[in-house]
This record gives sequence, structure tokens and C-alpha cells, in this order.
Amino acid sequence: MTRTSSTLRDFSRLSLNTRTVERWSVKEAVNGCARHEIPYIALWRDRVGEAGVAASAKLLRDAQLKVSSLCRGGFFPAPTDKERQARIDDNLRAVDEAAELGAEVLILVCGPAPDRDIDAGRQMVADGIAAVAPYAAERGVRLGVEPLHPMFAAERSVIVTLGEALQLGSSFEPAQVGVVVDAYHVWWDPDLYPQIARAGARIAGYHVDDWLVPLPDPLMGRGMMGDGVIELRKLRTAVELAGYSGPIEVEIFNRRVWDTPGDDVLELMKGRYLEFV
Amino acid sequence: MTRTSSTLRDFSRLSLNTRTVERWSVKEAVNGCARHEIPYIALWRDRVGEAGVAASAKLLRDAQLKVSSLCRGGFFPAPTDKERQARIDDNLRAVDEAAELGAEVLILVCGPAPDRDIDAGRQMVADGIAAVAPYAAERGVRLGVEPLHPMFAAERSVIVTLGEALQLGSSFEPAQVGVVVDAYHVWWDPDLYPQIARAGARIAGYHVDDWLVPLPDPLMGRGMMGDGVIELRKLRTAVELAGYSGPIEVEIFNRRVWDTPGDDVLELMKGRYLEFV
Repeated sequence: MTRTSSTLRDFSRLSLNTRTVERWSVKEAVNGCARHEIPYIALWRDRVGEAGVAASAKLLRDAQLKVSSLCRGGFFPAPTDKERQARIDDNLRAVDEAAELGAEVLILVCGPAPDRDIDAGRQMVADGIAAVAPYAAERGVRLGVEPLHPMFAAERSVIVTLGEALQLGSSFEPAQVGVVVDAYHVWWDPDLYPQIARAGARIAGYHVDDWLVPLPDPLMGRGMMGDGVIELRKLRTAVELAGYSGPIEVEIFNRRVWDTPGDDVLELMKGRYLEFV
Repeated sequence: MTRTSSTLRDFSRLSLNTRTVERWSVKEAVNGCARHEIPYIALWRDRVGEAGVAASAKLLRDAQLKVSSLCRGGFFPAPTDKERQARIDDNLRAVDEAAELGAEVLILVCGPAPDRDIDAGRQMVADGIAAVAPYAAERGVRLGVEPLHPMFAAERSVIVTLGEALQLGSSFEPAQVGVVVDAYHVWWDPDLYPQIARAGARIAGYHVDDWLVPLPDPLMGRGMMGDGVIELRKLRTAVELAGYSGPIEVEIFNRRVWDTPGDDVLELMKGRYLEFV
């Protein structure tokens, strides 16, 4: 990769993932996006649940805000058939919520294995996606498999590389099951750029953040773009060359960011977006 | 992988990596191995430096203790030619020390990139190994490239998968540049078992430990075998089927382990070795 994209000049693709402003309700986040002229939002089911799905959908419509994604479905592996079915049922509810909210993608964080057998966990993920995909297609909701960083393999996702996510998606149409590229989760991968090129039309989302040095905390130490070591512009270039031109979500799990007033976070995020993404 | 090795029945392949008993000097660790009838030891250059290389070599000879590895060379990437040459010079000294100690392998922890360009860092690693390998061969020291877990990509090693380590080694004879498989660093990899099979005679060492859930700390939260989620027996089976029958090092960076009296750690380690490795 030697070609580099020009800088982003406006905010037409920017999406606020509401985890970045953890303390805001859906209503506060919707209003924040309106105030700061951010056209997309990415919502989490727990917060949507607090506000109610129908009420959230109305807030979004009234604000003419687009929903880049709903987080999250997934967490398919479980020790028993009954528990696995319960996870699938929950994913079907998530599909309904995504449809009602008009979310472009339902993010799948695939879940850890129920015991030491990571390969069996991976098979449970494949089975879970196969069980959910037809209904998602029927409801017009695209599933987005998001590989997480390998340090989350034991606690959040047995799917840890883009290659693996693409393999999972390969039994389905790209419009039905895509992959989500999050800079924090994939930047380390020696096979990253070939896999992004391979992903092509299957890329269903692009998330930006940064990897801080030293790493303050695996889960809660994600950095604002520009504060870490990820080659964000090179990564965006690759994602765009592969064909993705959709929203770019800013998703930052970081206690210090969460302790900052939301409007200040949005101002900082917009500045860093133009400067580093 | 369905075939499973029989359990280990004796300690003939066991090696104490001295990081597991962080507070012991070389002399204390050598004496500890003798007391507990552990036939191999893996040494670190900082501790050897404190004791002196010649004095350490004499302690080892007197105790008839074999040295599975010396940790560590590597850390090749640096911002300037001059600094990179200084790293190479340090690796040449490490080769001399490994030769004098009779170490079977000099472990290479390859180092992080000096800036955001991780691919350039990877090239500096390849260049560094090329600069050191001929001298290592001359001195009869095998180099062992140890991929670290991707969560260390920004701080300790741009080489994060076994596949990448094998690629680095491929320009050299397996007896000259091998790879070291550490369970903690590689267990998450969806491509792990094919890469172990591919590694074959290039496997220069096998390290055991465990991945705790929840992860207490990325660097200092490694677990004793059996306390975490890694399929250690499956992994050893694969490493053996690939052709490796050498020493098995126990290397545990963990403050709680370090706070335990060394003799208790060695007893626990031996029990867990037979039970879980």
C-alpha cells in the first residue's frame, strides 16, 4: 500500500458510536449529533432498551439521523443446546430492533467459547450465524461480523482476525453477512491488507479509534484517533480501495474520554477525524 | 487435531525459565533445579549479567544442568541506522553469551516499530536477523524467533503470529533460524495448527503457561498451567507431531507467582506439568 487517500474534508461519513459518550442517553446522543452536525449514529441495545425501541426510532426520525449500526448481536457459543438457542433467539430480537431503528448493520461480537475448546466455539458461531442470517435477510438487516483483538479471545470473541470473519461470511451474500473493520482490533495483523482487499464488497463498516502506548487497559484503554500508533489513513485508504464508502464510526472505550463532557468529546472527535482519519 | 498425546510421565523435558522465579539469582535458580531434579534451565541475560557469564557457565557445568534457551536477543527496529547497528551489535554479544552458556537457542523477541509504520518495523526485524544469523551459525547458536501475542505489537514485538515467524525464518536453514511456540502468545490463532504442522523441524522451543480469565494484566498476568483456558495437551500433541521433542519451558510472568517462595513454585509447576501439559 503506497497510495494514500486525501484527507476527509467534511463530516458526511462521520458516525458517533454512542459508547464514545457512555454517559449519554439515546436522547442526549441524538441531540448531541444534531448540535454538532454529525449525520450518523451507532447505537447499543442496552441504551436503546432504556429509552424503548419505538421511542428511539422516533427520536432518530425527528432528528433525520442515520443509524450506521446497532451493537450488538452475537455471543453465540454456550454450553448447552438450550442456551445456544436462547442466544439465537436474542439475536432474532436484535434483528427486529435493528430493522425498527433503520440500522444499516447489526454488529456481531461473536462471543467466547464456553470451555477450553476454542475451535468448537468457532463452530458454534458459524451455526449461530446460519440460524440468524435468513431472518435478518427477510427483515432487510445486514449482519456485520466484527473480529475483535486476539486479547479478547477468551472473554468476548473467538473470531479474532479479518480472515476468519471473511471465512464465516463466505457462505452468504456480502449484502447479507458482511465484516466490520475496527482499527483497534485489526491493526496488528500481518495479513491485514491482503484481507481487506479480499473483503471487497463484504466490508459493512469501518470503526476508528487508536492503540495507546503503553496500553492503559485492554478494554477501557482505547485511544482517540491520533493519540496512538495505528496508521489510520493507510487503513482507510485500503478500506476505500476495497470498495467501502459508507459511514466511519468513532468508537472509543476509555474512562478518561467518558469523564469528559460529551460536547467536548464531540468537538475533539471531529477535529481528530479530519486530522488523522 | 483429534489425536491426543499421552500424559508426560517424567521431568526429562522440563525446563525452568528463570522468569518464573523472578527473584532468584542464577545461582539460586541453578540450585533450585538441582534440588527439584529439573534437567533444563532457561536464562535471561540481565540475571546472567549480574552473576557474570563465565561464573554462570561454571555453575551450570557443576550442576550438569542443560540450558534450553537464553532470553533474549531481538529488539531490532530503531529509528536510525546507527541505533539499528547498536541493536545488532548487542545481538552479536548475546550470541557469544549463548555460546558460552551452551544454550540450545537464543530467543529473539523482535521488538516494536520505532514509529507508526509497523511494516517498516517488520522489515527492520528481517534485516536484523539477516545481520546476526551468519555469526550465530558460526558460533553454533540457533536463533529462535518467538512471536508474541498481538497485544504486544506496539511495545515488544511486531512479529505476532507463528506464520510470520516462519516467513522470517524461511531464508535460513531450520537449524540456523527456528521458531519458538509459546502457548500464551499463540493459542488464539485460528491458523495455529496448520502453522505448527508447517513449522516442522523449525520448531526450536515450546513454552507453557496459561491464559487467565479474566485477564489480570497483559504482561504480568500469565497463569500457571491449568489455571486458564489454553488447550495445552492439544498444543503439545501438535508440536510433537510436527517433530519437536526438545525441552518444554515453563515461563510465567505473574506477580502472585513471584510473591510465592521459589521452592513452592517449582513443586506446583512440576505437578501442573504432569497434570496439564
